[in-house]
Amino acid sequence: MSDTPTTTPHTPADPTAASTPATPVAAPVAGADDLLRAVQAGVETIDLGRQLRVGMPQSPNHPQFWHTLPRRHGDMVRSDGSSAANDMITTGTHVGTHIDALAHVSFDGKLHGGADAAAACIGGKYEEHGVHTIAPMLRRGVLLDVAGHLGLTHCEGGYEITVADLEATAERAGVTVGAGDVVLIRSGWGARFAEGAAYVGGASGVPGVGEAGAVWLAERGVHAAGADTIAFERLAPGGGHALLPAHRVLLVEAGIYIVEALDLEGLAAAGWAEFTFVLVPMNIFGATGSPVRPLALRSTQPQSQDQAPTQSGAAS
Amino acid sequence: MSDTPTTTPHTPADPTAASTPATPVAAPVAGADDLLRAVQAGVETIDLGRQLRVGMPQSPNHPQFWHTLPRRHGDMVRSDGSSAANDMITTGTHVGTHIDALAHVSFDGKLHGGADAAAACIGGKYEEHGVHTIAPMLRRGVLLDVAGHLGLTHCEGGYEITVADLEATAERAGVTVGAGDVVLIRSGWGARFAEGAAYVGGASGVPGVGEAGAVWLAERGVHAAGADTIAFERLAPGGGHALLPAHRVLLVEAGIYIVEALDLEGLAAAGWAEFTFVLVPMNIFGATGSPVRPLALRSTQPQSQDQAPTQSGAAS
Amino acid sequence: MSDTPTTTPHTPADPTAASTPATPVAAPVAGADDLLRAVQAGVETIDLGRQLRVGMPQSPNHPQFWHTLPRRHGDMVRSDGSSAANDMITTGTHVGTHIDALAHVSFDGKLHGGADAAAACIGGKYEEHGVHTIAPMLRRGVLLDVAGHLGLTHCEGGYEITVADLEATAERAGVTVGAGDVVLIRSGWGARFAEGAAYVGGASGVPGVGEAGAVWLAERGVHAAGADTIAFERLAPGGGHALLPAHRVLLVEAGIYIVEALDLEGLAAAGWAEFTFVLVPMNIFGATGSPVRPLALRSTQPQSQDQAPTQSGAAS
Amino acid sequence: MSDTPTTTPHTPADPTAASTPATPVAAPVAGADDLLRAVQAGVETIDLGRQLRVGMPQSPNHPQFWHTLPRRHGDMVRSDGSSAANDMITTGTHVGTHIDALAHVSFDGKLHGGADAAAACIGGKYEEHGVHTIAPMLRRGVLLDVAGHLGLTHCEGGYEITVADLEATAERAGVTVGAGDVVLIRSGWGARFAEGAAYVGGASGVPGVGEAGAVWLAERGVHAAGADTIAFERLAPGGGHALLPAHRVLLVEAGIYIVEALDLEGLAAAGWAEFTFVLVPMNIFGATGSPVRPLALRSTQPQSQDQAPTQSGAAS
Repeated sequence: MSDTPTTTPHTPADPTAASTPATPVAAPVAGADDLLRAVQAGVETIDLGRQLRVGMPQSPNHPQFWHTLPRRHGDMVRSDGSSAANDMITTGTHVGTHIDALAHVSFDGKLHGGADAAAACIGGKYEEHGVHTIAPMLRRGVLLDVAGHLGLTHCEGGYEITVADLEATAERAGVTVGAGDVVLIRSGWGARFAEGAAYVGGASGVPGVGEAGAVWLAERGVHAAGADTIAFERLAPGGGHALLPAHRVLLVEAGIYIVEALDLEGLAAAGWAEFTFVLVPMNIFGATGSPVRPLALRSTQPQSQDQAPTQSGAAS
Repeated sequence: MSDTPTTTPHTPADPTAASTPATPVAAPVAGADDLLRAVQAGVETIDLGRQLRVGMPQSPNHPQFWHTLPRRHGDMVRSDGSSAANDMITTGTHVGTHIDALAHVSFDGKLHGGADAAAACIGGKYEEHGVHTIAPMLRRGVLLDVAGHLGLTHCEGGYEITVADLEATAERAGVTVGAGDVVLIRSGWGARFAEGAAYVGGASGVPGVGEAGAVWLAERGVHAAGADTIAFERLAPGGGHALLPAHRVLLVEAGIYIVEALDLEGLAAAGWAEFTFVLVPMNIFGATGSPVRPLALRSTQPQSQDQAPTQSGAAS
Repeated sequence: MSDTPTTTPHTPADPTAASTPATPVAAPVAGADDLLRAVQAGVETIDLGRQLRVGMPQSPNHPQFWHTLPRRHGDMVRSDGSSAANDMITTGTHVGTHIDALAHVSFDGKLHGGADAAAACIGGKYEEHGVHTIAPMLRRGVLLDVAGHLGLTHCEGGYEITVADLEATAERAGVTVGAGDVVLIRSGWGARFAEGAAYVGGASGVPGVGEAGAVWLAERGVHAAGADTIAFERLAPGGGHALLPAHRVLLVEAGIYIVEALDLEGLAAAGWAEFTFVLVPMNIFGATGSPVRPLALRSTQPQSQDQAPTQSGAAS
Repeated sequence: MSDTPTTTPHTPADPTAASTPATPVAAPVAGADDLLRAVQAGVETIDLGRQLRVGMPQSPNHPQFWHTLPRRHGDMVRSDGSSAANDMITTGTHVGTHIDALAHVSFDGKLHGGADAAAACIGGKYEEHGVHTIAPMLRRGVLLDVAGHLGLTHCEGGYEITVADLEATAERAGVTVGAGDVVLIRSGWGARFAEGAAYVGGASGVPGVGEAGAVWLAERGVHAAGADTIAFERLAPGGGHALLPAHRVLLVEAGIYIVEALDLEGLAAAGWAEFTFVLVPMNIFGATGSPVRPLALRSTQPQSQDQAPTQSGAAS
């Protein structure tokens, strides 16, 4: 089971007391704790995020990702011979591997919890359900490699991943999906990322769960769900003005975050069905989502006695 | 000691073999490993990143952070009554809490390792030392709360944190800085973040290490160093065209990453001197840095026997 | 008197008939017309727009102007040895010398003509009163050099230019303001542009007309009014949450466009009180304004008989 | 013939003499000059620029045009019931109807006049040949409606407009191209603008002059040349890494500006072969080009005696 990590907010110091002696803080906490010891014993990391590059495939509904260098080395040289380069980024937030916050989708004018979507936009920011309200995730992650289960490089465009597919995949992998977990569903479509426009899948549609699969996830109380397509859910070929029932079920009804355009190829190749999932959203006040770079982690040390007997050494 | 996490690259599937059956993958790896067990036993998280808000203090040398909503709920309503909102971001990368990649600073026209800085910019991207080359960090982190050690809310603008300060702080906290660690130095200046322009510190200067402190860090073989100011190192009052010797020592000479504008107030209040440090850079190809949102983590469970005897219960 | 220029819309050709012979067009119209002859006889141009540079003074309420080069010569070289450089711009529209469209300001939730301001924003664009609805201007322009009339380099921050000021200035210059004209009011504050933040005038306030001056302009039926400050109208020192009555009178009530941050120094130095005014807005669909670069033009040839007797040779 | 308009630079007033009396300026110049009289007698305007809309066709090599509203009416309401909306734009400069400055293209590492292209980029700006150096244009314009001459809605993709085409078109229209003129060449491809990607013409190629046509223009000493395609010159079908000889001849060798993606449909429908051409570049310091919105103007009054006998009344 996965505990929700807690985040300790800090109280800003009184700026008018700039140089007065501070009240003594608690004696320093040092020494390695269980987590640090596990880390130091050796951890393998699989990067689940796509690289952000100009020209990468993305939805045309969102501002295009651009990166440029306002300053290059030599533009300005200091008296000691040093110089610097820096960057400018313009981008939509639902671009590359990204997370949808609850402010992203509304149904009948309401956000999750019944908040009025128009009123929720205070001064141009979604104060209540923006991405800044998503706590960093450090949780149990589960991969449901549906394509692997079906013996395909990838499911077909437009294919709806059914509840039967999800359950069979989970059973074969020897995992169960529990409350608070993050579930990643691999359709294999991510293998097409390098094809660019074909990955976006307008004409071909994309595979993914439909309403039923979303309900199945919600019934299990997952914390977030992710997929290796931009759309997360199934889009029919030539989708056009597609309805997105899974977004409605997860974001609006269940309050479950959605992560899109994940790179699950390495995770599937390693065969990890269960792992520690780390996702830290960009803390953009009032935004409807943000680019993310989630990680899957597993200890490299041999496991101890009390784990499931069936596992391969792929992660060691 | 901290091991460098390894990242398993994935091999993209052959796009021309889209629907052919895939080669069988390794049997799924399931079961909880040591890391996951430690996570599930309970972890406390302290967020070390600043929220990204329009108008937050930042260096004027970098494009200003802006967030806006191209689409709000109601702009477009689908046939099922659903609607969506999305975002556009424009920003420099050295804005808010951020990491400097080795491509950021050059000295006498050379980057770390002797690479020619001009030639390194291939087609407008720093292919070799860009932020995309910084592996996600999951390492031992050490806080040197210099302000706390000196009994101040914050060090004065322009104050140089000396080697003696660093060593005394470490000793009092009962920690040593080792190879591969990430060291966070708290001057307390971060408590002034809410003051805006004053935090940027042009007129007042900002506290921080100088060349000597940077050399001390480099001698210890740290992986990265961070501070709670935009500049990381000391800037004299009215700094103007400041030289940045610590940047030269760390980035150019030692190949050590720098993290700036951290929020260390919560970490200091909790008294954590040692923790698991997590930092996942944005994987922006060829960029000189990226916004980051690092975390400090400690198990909430009571520690086991073999750790240092002095610790407080602040994290439990 | 000034006629409203008419713009001939074009009817897009039928794309399906791409290569079919076109219907014959009217016989070509050639030969020099009166306008062209006047142009070819010699025209002096005074540029009324500010250069767009990173770091130029602008209102902090609008996205900061940034220009950068994604591509520089040498980044990519073609097989014939040629190369190219290009640009990226990010900017607010009310930045630098710019025009306010009628969509910019609302009063009690209504735009000019009573349109509901919220409903007018269709899919995130102001379809009805956006800057794309402002026809290019080629009109009689009048300069009211109030600072010159008062014998000052510039009026004081917070000074309200009165109706008496406007009328005395016009009389002294030997001009009258008529329906359809564009009136430019010089407070002299534009001479402070190079001072940066001081030009923005937050603490000092800025000079300009108040409600009375705006009413005076509206009564005369001007087409547009401009000034050499960012605010156009008077701002009291330490303005803070200033009300902007002139914006209400002109944009919302009278439907008169406002041009801000003009450079009127050259125009005043040349002593032109009357001239041809050219302003071509950027045709940005649905925007609330756009950067502009207006021009003042006068023939360099000696004037013919029927003009006012008092003129100097400054423009010849 | 067309005179080069002169622009009177202004001398910034001494900021330290803010409120001291100014030196008396020349007596005001009032009265209508020949140009203003021609304007007031009636002018018809044809807009030659494309509207800037999100999603409009543009070259993928340049940052995509985006417009959004950071603030909408109601986001912030002042105490008097007024509110405002504003915009953010991000865009490349070679997007929509735009002008290429001489800094845009280099050949063998050199810009026009032999300037070293790398050295010309000072601190990330092209100080010498940037778009800020292009004076506003008020000149004789000539339309060479090649498609009209050939009796086609548009020339085929990949068709090279020959010198013979240019000369025959000019002769039929009864115009000659002279030194200092601006020549607009209509291939008719602009009629495909609404088709989006097809207008960009990657696969189909686009029609336009080749090297020979560019040389012909240079020999006549034109000031600028424009076309109704993004590329201005001919691109072969499936162009890929096309060489652009006309850009080299015009920009690098002859110092002649290029205007691209013009809308010439209205101009051709009106049959204007000769007109006053107005183009005011955005004064972006150091940029390689800028969006523009050129105009074609002709007096609506009957022409006077000394013009060419053949003209139709389309413009009256």
